[in-house]
Amino acid sequence: MSKIKLTFPDDSVREFDEGTTVQDVAKSISTSLGKKAVAGKLNDTLIDVERPISQDGKIEIIAGEDDEDSLKVLRNTASLVFGAAASEFKKNLHFGEKESNDDGFFVDTDDKDGQISVDELEEISAIMHKIIKNNDKVERVMMDKSELVEMFKDDPYKSSLIDAIESVQIPVYKLDGFVDFGYDAILPSMKNLKHFNLLSVAGAYWQGKSSNPMLQRIYGTAFYKEADLEADAKRRAEIKERDHRTIGRDLDLFFVDPEVGAGLPYWMPNGATIRRVIERYIIDKEVAWGYQHVYTPILMNLNAYKTSGHWEHYREDMFPPMDMGDGEMLELRPMNCPSHIQIYNHHKRSYRELPVRIAELGMMHRYEKSGALTGLQRVREMTLNDGHTFVALDQIQAEFKRTLQLMVEVYKDFDITDYSFRLSYRDPANTEKYFDDDEMWNKSQSMLKGAMDELGLKYYEAEGEAAFYGPKLDVQTKTALGNDETLSTIQLDFMQPEKFQLTYTGSDGEEHRPVMIHRGIVSTMERFIAYLIEMYKGAFPTWLAPTQVRIIPVNQKIHGSYAENLLKELRAKNIRAEIDTRDEKMGYKIRDAQTMKVPYTAVVGDQEMADATVSVRKYGEDNSESENLPMFVGSVVSDINNFSRSNG
Amino acid sequence: MSKIKLTFPDDSVREFDEGTTVQDVAKSISTSLGKKAVAGKLNDTLIDVERPISQDGKIEIIAGEDDEDSLKVLRNTASLVFGAAASEFKKNLHFGEKESNDDGFFVDTDDKDGQISVDELEEISAIMHKIIKNNDKVERVMMDKSELVEMFKDDPYKSSLIDAIESVQIPVYKLDGFVDFGYDAILPSMKNLKHFNLLSVAGAYWQGKSSNPMLQRIYGTAFYKEADLEADAKRRAEIKERDHRTIGRDLDLFFVDPEVGAGLPYWMPNGATIRRVIERYIIDKEVAWGYQHVYTPILMNLNAYKTSGHWEHYREDMFPPMDMGDGEMLELRPMNCPSHIQIYNHHKRSYRELPVRIAELGMMHRYEKSGALTGLQRVREMTLNDGHTFVALDQIQAEFKRTLQLMVEVYKDFDITDYSFRLSYRDPANTEKYFDDDEMWNKSQSMLKGAMDELGLKYYEAEGEAAFYGPKLDVQTKTALGNDETLSTIQLDFMQPEKFQLTYTGSDGEEHRPVMIHRGIVSTMERFIAYLIEMYKGAFPTWLAPTQVRIIPVNQKIHGSYAENLLKELRAKNIRAEIDTRDEKMGYKIRDAQTMKVPYTAVVGDQEMADATVSVRKYGEDNSESENLPMFVGSVVSDINNFSRSNG
Repeated sequence: MSKIKLTFPDDSVREFDEGTTVQDVAKSISTSLGKKAVAGKLNDTLIDVERPISQDGKIEIIAGEDDEDSLKVLRNTASLVFGAAASEFKKNLHFGEKESNDDGFFVDTDDKDGQISVDELEEISAIMHKIIKNNDKVERVMMDKSELVEMFKDDPYKSSLIDAIESVQIPVYKLDGFVDFGYDAILPSMKNLKHFNLLSVAGAYWQGKSSNPMLQRIYGTAFYKEADLEADAKRRAEIKERDHRTIGRDLDLFFVDPEVGAGLPYWMPNGATIRRVIERYIIDKEVAWGYQHVYTPILMNLNAYKTSGHWEHYREDMFPPMDMGDGEMLELRPMNCPSHIQIYNHHKRSYRELPVRIAELGMMHRYEKSGALTGLQRVREMTLNDGHTFVALDQIQAEFKRTLQLMVEVYKDFDITDYSFRLSYRDPANTEKYFDDDEMWNKSQSMLKGAMDELGLKYYEAEGEAAFYGPKLDVQTKTALGNDETLSTIQLDFMQPEKFQLTYTGSDGEEHRPVMIHRGIVSTMERFIAYLIEMYKGAFPTWLAPTQVRIIPVNQKIHGSYAENLLKELRAKNIRAEIDTRDEKMGYKIRDAQTMKVPYTAVVGDQEMADATVSVRKYGEDNSESENLPMFVGSVVSDINNFSRSNG
Repeated sequence: MSKIKLTFPDDSVREFDEGTTVQDVAKSISTSLGKKAVAGKLNDTLIDVERPISQDGKIEIIAGEDDEDSLKVLRNTASLVFGAAASEFKKNLHFGEKESNDDGFFVDTDDKDGQISVDELEEISAIMHKIIKNNDKVERVMMDKSELVEMFKDDPYKSSLIDAIESVQIPVYKLDGFVDFGYDAILPSMKNLKHFNLLSVAGAYWQGKSSNPMLQRIYGTAFYKEADLEADAKRRAEIKERDHRTIGRDLDLFFVDPEVGAGLPYWMPNGATIRRVIERYIIDKEVAWGYQHVYTPILMNLNAYKTSGHWEHYREDMFPPMDMGDGEMLELRPMNCPSHIQIYNHHKRSYRELPVRIAELGMMHRYEKSGALTGLQRVREMTLNDGHTFVALDQIQAEFKRTLQLMVEVYKDFDITDYSFRLSYRDPANTEKYFDDDEMWNKSQSMLKGAMDELGLKYYEAEGEAAFYGPKLDVQTKTALGNDETLSTIQLDFMQPEKFQLTYTGSDGEEHRPVMIHRGIVSTMERFIAYLIEMYKGAFPTWLAPTQVRIIPVNQKIHGSYAENLLKELRAKNIRAEIDTRDEKMGYKIRDAQTMKVPYTAVVGDQEMADATVSVRKYGEDNSESENLPMFVGSVVSDINNFSRSNG
């Protein structure tokens, strides 16, 4: 019998008989490892414990309970068992793509007579438990591709998946009459698959293309230990509570409909109100800080992006250009800088004008893969709180400091406290990878650091993280889903002024090159509001709340006109107030105002009419307090002016 | 000799010898007509008086002094004389396209060594007068196309123009060594060409394509009578004074640069401020009137425009679709209605909610030919003050009336008075051309009329002017250039609710179809602000003026801090104020504030500091008045709140 040589992670090499299995190898190390092994990794590819090995290679035994590979094998197995159970539950079910990953697993299913509903997950889960309890045997066979083609010839999804496989021999798994392929490894026994959950269902286009049929994607997860599954369930519940998509739906803030445009959010009146308040706030703030706000077109001749270098380096993230038929190619802008450069360049500039601060709520379009799109967080059309300051080299520190001060002031108004500053420098060991001007780099990096220190802000320094064209500051935070998110950026740019040949006349009468500072304070409206929704868990402070006061008359007929009067007084102070005139019970209306997280609920009845008061219930509080009218109106106004919230 | 038959405008027919000229024909009628004839019109085509006629046809003698044809022949001749004069002035000049029309004429020229500048027009004009005074003879010859090709083989523009001519024999004109073609008729003598002006120069792409070289277009005009030329010059001066493009440049409001995008305006800070104030005004107004403002994406799946019918009927005006590579075709929206339909349709609607009023400052894109683009008036990217109200059939009159009231209120705030209302109905003789629902048409048309009458508004009724899908109201006005412009529209729509299957639940529990009302109050931001610039001649009322107060310290060192203090007080009241700290003379600064049409100029010197006053000069007034600080601030605030202007 021929021999093969296997190399272990500690670089030791041992000989085995050809055809030995992972199980055999594990056993040869120790009996317990033989029992614990759930899969092998041959040349970095997961394989079944039962698979015979017929070649030399690197081998690793997968036997853990919380490492990535072990969990993947466990979730593969859960996915297979789900397939068997779902096929038992629905006889005509078809299966599309599937995946196991560090979050869990999903399986795409299709049934023309009716997709699997979220209510049916429990029943399918019960069948899965039955299969596991029986410890039904998974049969593993290698099949010729042609055999498989024949077997699945009536299933268009499977046929297409088989088509995409390159190898001639394909490992196939059979469980209780359910046949599937496309797993790298499956547990040797069902006994480890105890702790799993089927989580949710969602529509997913076949192969991610919106022109294809919509399948039903079933999400689940699995762990080796009960405690891990419980912790995961708790984490998911927390995410769900904070997830801006859930809150966005519950508070009727926005929606996205891939049928009319993937990654293109519609802002419902409630969400639009929040956005409008923020837009006005940031524009007014910036104007007060010396920015000149402009409007520039969202389309530009493609040539400008060729000059800027975006077309060369960034094309994948850009929308397809439009041929206007008269030699003009127009491009939806992926960034606003070339537009603001047009504004700067429209006049001859003098050193006396610097810093020139151009700002805009600039709409931009970026191509994101449809799989990456997430509510308001990852979209294809976005409006950035953008600004570009043109400064002389020696003004960098002062302007950077000023921008930081503005940023900190804004964060304070929004009550944002959970963030960190990161300064990105060029890599001192590889300076040739960066824009070639040592003096500019050294000077500007030390000015950025100097400004942070002057303001006493804490930060960390990341060498080698700068862009090609200049150092930057990022303000980092995390989304509910745990992803890193950049809230604000200040980015120096030595390159664009060169590329677009920007100048100003110095006090010496000569032409000089300005430095450009890109900066976003509150990021895009989409991302920022997604962040705020999650941070506030939907309970916006009074100045941002879509409805600030909801008035509930105890009896519409008797107290209606008193309510109208209150409404008028509130609106005269620009307070967003409304009367709940629906034909519902008082208790329902009060609960609904709390569900919609309205800061102030003002109930008016006989007592209030008689005393010229309102009975005020603040969001999140259990009790009401009686307040006289001017006092109540005054407290709402002061709340708004102080960016504070009804319940302190 | 053969005979030909010519038919005169009075339908009389006379015989002439073949080869007779227009001149001969005119003389045969009367000696004076023979003298006055400037051209003929053979079968509706202008021809030279000297051209021999060799076929039967309709003939007309052109001999007037202010009809379209006579003026065209005169302007053709001026264009030819310009060519001869310009060739004498610049030896290497090339000529592109040219045109004579009811406004004057233009000739495109090109000189690689330097284009004709506006300053050189006077010199060229002098050479033209010399040619005319000499009464230099225009030589007319018929040339073979091949001869002409050979003659102009080194001139790419002429070669391309010859290429485009279909006939084999081409009439060619020679004047003082200048050779040209492409005129239908030229005056028989120079003596009538006395009253002409060369007006202006502007860049124009060869054949209107932005990928082609930029030529220099010379504009001119000519009249038979001196008084006509003088009246025309006066009219042009008035237009120029009002033309929003001129004012837009002078006040630094906006610019358009075809190099980065034809028809895509850039709003400079001054113009952007005006736009922002108007946007906030109209949103706040609409919210107060019960509209729900939203933000919807400017891109939509092309399928939606197929459903709406825009793709079928309106494709020429739409931008090219973008293929997103996953089966999705995205289209820049040409209208906002399908977007607002998404908002309506996102919830199930009940009769209790109606009317549902959705509004947005909706950005849209429409393809306009580059030749039609005009400043802010005709653009390719625009933001419409758009709104869609969904009503029950019997709510049309009340909602229409309400919209009119809003409109009239808004016009009053902007001091717009010069407009007329037009009601457009379906053609009663061709009802089959319209959306098929007689009851709906009859009822809604009478409701529109009823609402106008209730409000006592004057209007005219245009039968047959309605759109296919419903009657409408337009508010019409005129631009400085004399073009008709629609300021506002209220358009009923029975069709989209059908196409998109819109419903609401009635009080009977059944599903009903709502009627949709499209309405724009202040049109697009671009068109409306172009209109306002022309109407106000750039002198915006205080609430809209980019700078409301300009403070001029007599001596920056001495009065600077007093000026700063005043600035602070004004800004605390949200007044847009600035200090003119430039190193210029007082007189210059005061004049400049007037040139920039700043409502209030506040001069502060010794006297003002001592008395705690300001010396206030209002826009358009010659004198200053001393006012104490609170009074001054108060009057600016009251001006803003009342939508009024500094000088009453």
